[in-house]
Amino acid sequence: MSERTTIVVQSGDMDKLYSALIIANGSLAMGMEVSLYFTFWGLERLKKGGLERGPLSRMHLLGLGKWMVRRRMKAARVASLERLMADFRELGGKVLACEMTMEIMGIKRQDLREDLIDAYGAVGSYIADARKSTVTLFI
Amino acid sequence: MSERTTIVVQSGDMDKLYSALIIANGSLAMGMEVSLYFTFWGLERLKKGGLERGPLSRMHLLGLGKWMVRRRMKAARVASLERLMADFRELGGKVLACEMTMEIMGIKRQDLREDLIDAYGAVGSYIADARKSTVTLFI
Amino acid sequence: MSERTTIVVQSGDMDKLYSALIIANGSLAMGMEVSLYFTFWGLERLKKGGLERGPLSRMHLLGLGKWMVRRRMKAARVASLERLMADFRELGGKVLACEMTMEIMGIKRQDLREDLIDAYGAVGSYIADARKSTVTLFI
Repeated sequence: MSERTTIVVQSGDMDKLYSALIIANGSLAMGMEVSLYFTFWGLERLKKGGLERGPLSRMHLLGLGKWMVRRRMKAARVASLERLMADFRELGGKVLACEMTMEIMGIKRQDLREDLIDAYGAVGSYIADARKSTVTLFI
Repeated sequence: MSERTTIVVQSGDMDKLYSALIIANGSLAMGMEVSLYFTFWGLERLKKGGLERGPLSRMHLLGLGKWMVRRRMKAARVASLERLMADFRELGGKVLACEMTMEIMGIKRQDLREDLIDAYGAVGSYIADARKSTVTLFI
Repeated sequence: MSERTTIVVQSGDMDKLYSALIIANGSLAMGMEVSLYFTFWGLERLKKGGLERGPLSRMHLLGLGKWMVRRRMKAARVASLERLMADFRELGGKVLACEMTMEIMGIKRQDLREDLIDAYGAVGSYIADARKSTVTLFI
């Protein structure tokens, strides 16, 4: 039986996106299958240009400026969100976009990074993947 | 073996409550059993009148006013939290209230929507359900 | 087969740390194995002195002052985070510290409560535990 990690990406905070993508890519690297279901603020990040801007969240409050965070991440050889997303796709990870969020937020397909999205779906698509997953997370 | 989704509802944010209830009701609709364990700010929302007021969280910060969010949700035919909770109960979902939260927050049973709650319990009740669940989330 | 609970502790908020440790200790008490993977703001809390200070988060915003929260928790006989951590370790729970966070945040081993940490690792260590877990949470 193939193992799967399924993550709801609801947050748009940079630190949480990092956690989601690092866990996702780590799972792929260890031979698991992975589904990411982007909803609410997570889906906002899949808008064109959304991976590079967006709230740094509490990293900022901690007194580490954006510049400092980027510098430290570079020193620690941490890839950009854009790079992590590209790796995720190349390794065979699956990206689902939440249609209800699109309706509520007034987001159209052409507003989104369609190159990164495998399918547009509702909660049923998420549960179909989650129920056959070993690891299920809400981030 | 029957499958189960068990969710800790710790957040009182409207968007997170929506996520929890939509995943819960979707799981029920797909034939799974579901337990929701309400704790901290999640339990605050089960106080009388709590489902309708309460923090809109970052929806508000995004510049979408409450009125706009409600209008868009209505246009997208998204049910109210009250409606989603009623559906959850009718479909056989189980609601647990965290007793420790009640003690810390000084919440009495009569302060709560007792019509929505199946049982009052501690962490042991949660783990008993979670350990036999396919999908476990903390929201 | 032994059952396991694996939790990513990303948040440093007091209420979320309580949830993580109460679920962790409850799992141990019910005969499960438990791994806690501390990352980002969660790992900040494992710095020397970090369990006792740190953000009270929205507890504060709710108008309950720190003093009031501590008084109520004492009245409700809720143990301190320090006590819960000690119990966790005595009951055989495993604590992993995220090395990437240490690099980004500039945290050295001697800055951390090394007495509480079993191992320093990357995402692979987390996934190795999570994939054999019944309960997986991101807090």
